[in-house]
Amino acid sequence: MKIERKVNYYETDAMKIVHHSNYIRYFEEARIELLSQLGLPYSKIEQERIMIPVLGVECKYMTASKFEDILEINCKLKEYTGIKFVVEYSIFNKTSNKMSVIGQTKHCFTNNDLKPISLKKVNPDMHEVFQKALNK
Amino acid sequence: MKIERKVNYYETDAMKIVHHSNYIRYFEEARIELLSQLGLPYSKIEQERIMIPVLGVECKYMTASKFEDILEINCKLKEYTGIKFVVEYSIFNKTSNKMSVIGQTKHCFTNNDLKPISLKKVNPDMHEVFQKALNK
Amino acid sequence: MKIERKVNYYETDAMKIVHHSNYIRYFEEARIELLSQLGLPYSKIEQERIMIPVLGVECKYMTASKFEDILEINCKLKEYTGIKFVVEYSIFNKTSNKMSVIGQTKHCFTNNDLKPISLKKVNPDMHEVFQKALNK
Amino acid sequence: MKIERKVNYYETDAMKIVHHSNYIRYFEEARIELLSQLGLPYSKIEQERIMIPVLGVECKYMTASKFEDILEINCKLKEYTGIKFVVEYSIFNKTSNKMSVIGQTKHCFTNNDLKPISLKKVNPDMHEVFQKALNK
Repeated sequence: MKIERKVNYYETDAMKIVHHSNYIRYFEEARIELLSQLGLPYSKIEQERIMIPVLGVECKYMTASKFEDILEINCKLKEYTGIKFVVEYSIFNKTSNKMSVIGQTKHCFTNNDLKPISLKKVNPDMHEVFQKALNK
Repeated sequence: MKIERKVNYYETDAMKIVHHSNYIRYFEEARIELLSQLGLPYSKIEQERIMIPVLGVECKYMTASKFEDILEINCKLKEYTGIKFVVEYSIFNKTSNKMSVIGQTKHCFTNNDLKPISLKKVNPDMHEVFQKALNK
Repeated sequence: MKIERKVNYYETDAMKIVHHSNYIRYFEEARIELLSQLGLPYSKIEQERIMIPVLGVECKYMTASKFEDILEINCKLKEYTGIKFVVEYSIFNKTSNKMSVIGQTKHCFTNNDLKPISLKKVNPDMHEVFQKALNK
Repeated sequence: MKIERKVNYYETDAMKIVHHSNYIRYFEEARIELLSQLGLPYSKIEQERIMIPVLGVECKYMTASKFEDILEINCKLKEYTGIKFVVEYSIFNKTSNKMSVIGQTKHCFTNNDLKPISLKKVNPDMHEVFQKALNK
């Protein structure tokens, strides 16, 4: 799955490049789109009273991106255990024609009070969606 | 009431100055401190099941601020009607010794579903706090 | 001129609505696209060694927007004097079918050291672009 | 080295917790203070025409933080090779009395055109500062 987006001016910093924290936000944009395409739009997840907080983030910065650069954000489900999952990302800068960053995020599932739950037990339907996505 | 804070690197943009949207966030920092000093810390407001959304923002930019500049954010309650209030701000840059921005924000009170309420009717105690703050 | 964009999760706040400071950023997205469509993409402005800082911002918040809402950001050049210009905005929430915010920003032109310049004198070609856009 | 700071309202998201990307910004705040205390304030680094971009970020999220929580951000220089360095962080939430996140960032040195340089060769004085900080 991939999305494309331009770098906004307010995402740059005094080095005239995208501030490194913003790539973590770009990851989120792609991840939400990935879940949506798998059949799990946020509205459905919220309706099931499930939240998906972030357990960990890793990002390697290869080349800087600048204002108005076109970024292609690729992401896919890499691991899923019924309790946790890992999404992998790469952001390719189509303007510079260079890989910009690669990274991954790790997540769990919680109820609305942020208490961890086993998706496999609590919501077998959503569990199946993740299971299928992993095998693709 | 005033607070002091340094400009963070991630608040700068490619012009090497604070991105103009961040002053709106600085206003919020000062406003929350103002309410807290009046005896209305966020925890108390939340406990009373009241929310204070923003109805309007105005900001005039006089001189740019840079990374690590020390900003003195002044704010005070300017108007209060029982239903709405206005807070006035000025941000003085202590590093450049120049006025950076002036502005104001307008607010109303709502319940937790974002429906407007009259503070005067719904919460006479909080109403009195605002009334007193105005007369100071 | 108008652009469309979805609300990102990281743009929401603890009230579960778009943080009010982000609309100022949405204004910037639309303004940059407006200048680009007028024939003044950022790359060209930068090449002419001209910067366009913000002198003032005004925003009126009518209804809140939520995560994943589709926003239509309209903007147009409202005033232009050769030295300063004003852009007007309205953001319509296509998901709630309600007007979200209206606002305006005021700008001047500077050289790369942030010293104000008269565009009319310094860059007659760019001046003409603004003049024409105003008369449309 | 440690700094303390309150969570701002605009740093929360619709889960009513600090958005995970903001911890990367908190890391930066602490890192800049660390370099400053070592004798390398940003103004000096900039004067030497050196930039310090981020090569990598890792963050593990242990417990969520909320608006107005007091965070204690600890950081220290963990590795330094003359060409690259690693800073380690832990953020302790003094309000909840729980560890919030741990993480690290990896950096290199570049000239003003973002070309990597060996600090050891290009700037022996700054090299010595890093060397000493590592041995502490």
